[in-house]
Amino acid sequence: MTKTISILGATGSVGRSTLDLVERNPDRFEIVAVTAATNADALAKIARRTGAKLAVIADETRLAELQAGLAGSGCRAAAGEEALSEAAAADADLVIAAIVGCAGLTPVMAAIEKGRIVALANKEALVTAGALMTQAAARSGAVLLPVDSEHNAIFQCIASARREDVSKIILTASGGPFRTSPAEAIAAATPAQAVAHPNWSMGAKISVDCATLMNKGLELIEAHYLFGLGANRIDVVIHPQSVVHSLVEFVDGSVLAQLGSPDMRIPIAYTLAWPERMATPAQRLDLPSIARLDFEQPDLKRFPALRLAREALEAGGAAPIVLNAANEVAVASFLAGEIAFPEIAAIVERALSASDHAAPGTIAEVLEIDRLTRERVQTAKQMACQ
Amino acid sequence: MTKTISILGATGSVGRSTLDLVERNPDRFEIVAVTAATNADALAKIARRTGAKLAVIADETRLAELQAGLAGSGCRAAAGEEALSEAAAADADLVIAAIVGCAGLTPVMAAIEKGRIVALANKEALVTAGALMTQAAARSGAVLLPVDSEHNAIFQCIASARREDVSKIILTASGGPFRTSPAEAIAAATPAQAVAHPNWSMGAKISVDCATLMNKGLELIEAHYLFGLGANRIDVVIHPQSVVHSLVEFVDGSVLAQLGSPDMRIPIAYTLAWPERMATPAQRLDLPSIARLDFEQPDLKRFPALRLAREALEAGGAAPIVLNAANEVAVASFLAGEIAFPEIAAIVERALSASDHAAPGTIAEVLEIDRLTRERVQTAKQMACQ
Repeated sequence: MTKTISILGATGSVGRSTLDLVERNPDRFEIVAVTAATNADALAKIARRTGAKLAVIADETRLAELQAGLAGSGCRAAAGEEALSEAAAADADLVIAAIVGCAGLTPVMAAIEKGRIVALANKEALVTAGALMTQAAARSGAVLLPVDSEHNAIFQCIASARREDVSKIILTASGGPFRTSPAEAIAAATPAQAVAHPNWSMGAKISVDCATLMNKGLELIEAHYLFGLGANRIDVVIHPQSVVHSLVEFVDGSVLAQLGSPDMRIPIAYTLAWPERMATPAQRLDLPSIARLDFEQPDLKRFPALRLAREALEAGGAAPIVLNAANEVAVASFLAGEIAFPEIAAIVERALSASDHAAPGTIAEVLEIDRLTRERVQTAKQMACQ
Repeated sequence: MTKTISILGATGSVGRSTLDLVERNPDRFEIVAVTAATNADALAKIARRTGAKLAVIADETRLAELQAGLAGSGCRAAAGEEALSEAAAADADLVIAAIVGCAGLTPVMAAIEKGRIVALANKEALVTAGALMTQAAARSGAVLLPVDSEHNAIFQCIASARREDVSKIILTASGGPFRTSPAEAIAAATPAQAVAHPNWSMGAKISVDCATLMNKGLELIEAHYLFGLGANRIDVVIHPQSVVHSLVEFVDGSVLAQLGSPDMRIPIAYTLAWPERMATPAQRLDLPSIARLDFEQPDLKRFPALRLAREALEAGGAAPIVLNAANEVAVASFLAGEIAFPEIAAIVERALSASDHAAPGTIAEVLEIDRLTRERVQTAKQMACQ
């Protein structure tokens, strides 16, 4: 049977990998709607190639370009935030939510409220609005399938197990480029050093998050909401080879782990085919040629971001939103050469201390806390520079 | 709800671990029948302690001793092969089949033919009668839950997955005490060196099987029957730390692994609680303190037993029975100081070449091929010694 799919963020990395898998299985999938932030030309080409019925560009100034690209294709063009939510809520068996950043919140919520099965690649949805999203999913019957390799690993390990049989989950982290660096070297780290991730090829912002371990901190918050476990039942272990993507410990002492090559098509394929599986061209894991897997405790002294994320999760309410927004501003400053590497965590810590927001009750309130935090952090930074 | 359990082989290692778990959960389990080979005194004590209704001693000369031990307990005493099968077929939610050796075949078959859920710890059942056992299970609806840590790991990893989504299974082997030894050192190995297993505390025979890798060869055959995969879809990888108990690769490139401390109560508890889980006192896995996991290809030149087992599986019919029986005789000779270590595999290879048995159609025929092979190997050995 054909599975109908909408792809929010079709021109990004997850979107392109999804399309690669979908186009290898033309009889298995049918594309309903596709969206992109600004690249109207690429979006029009994807919509034509896949026979999508709706193509939405977030940037309204690109609507004419999209319309021109779709002329005669039979695919409807639309633009703007409301159209994005329309694409998210469109009738489809599966929604791939791969919009980057807080722009993804409203469309993801629209898909969840419709009770869809949502393959979630947008980190901000659960980091900043985890309680709202999971409560809405419980009401509507929506299913969240994590795309991120760590959460996808945990999802696979838990599979059909009863939630009460899980004793804890163990997120693995590569440790980033500064895993073995002394504190003084980390203090002097340049953007070029910070973005050199050892195992995965990623964008600059997330590479810096891997270097600070904030990425793992954000994943800790996501894991809490995805799997309903308290922060004290989510461990982080450093595993430099990134072969074991995460693990689950059960009450009997058994531990299940998911392993694989660093190819996002594996977790994406899992969400596409779920609850079955589908073949992928991803390289098979060859343990004897990998030869060795290492594990160590994370060092919270050299990598305070992980501690901050845990504290934000335990504080709850608006704290994870502040953590995420302050971190984004701080990482951009670091990448622009304005601040030193340890200032990233320091800025986040100050933002968390200064925050006095009430817990948000709507996505609009989440977005407002996000905006206010960015403003405050920018202002504080400019004052510090004067 | 209370689960009723019969334990075949209650005084052995698996039997005792099972009783440890059962007695920690008195409200969860109720013992129906218990059996032992020769230790009537220990069996009577177990039966009294657990309130079993039937206690069977295989050795008929010990019946009076068992009866005396059970006097006034309300537990019926019986002895001999037929009584063992009666205990195996007795009405119970779960049968723990932990009789050692070919003595377990008839009772295991009795439980399978009754359509029971059987926690299988007897290796010979699947090695020597895999086709007969699995065909009988398919007819009766019996479920085989593997107790052996490797097969239990695979069973956990496959869980609810569709069989067609599994691309291969990967059995891990410690590599035994001679993993890094040159061929000349292996040729001169003493029994004391061979039984020094690095990770698990086991009996002498199985320790030697670990040293030759025949143990992994026998597990390869068991895995074939348990999971219905051809020999070409069952890999063996050497993993000296024995932390990863085995792995399953799926068609998407995803690999699931089960890990744990070397405590048989973990897989036993899995079979006791299946399809749920239950708490155990087993030590929790601490990956940072283990620090490192290694993997390498097995060396079939230094460890030909693994090649022989694969050949016996591919040959099918009586070959696995001959492999197993010849190996038992050869290992006993090695432990008695009669033959050198490499002679174990050589004897097995000659026995396989000389074998001309038709595939067995009944357990009686399996036992007859087993008996004839032992006789032939003994005779050949005595002639070689003259």
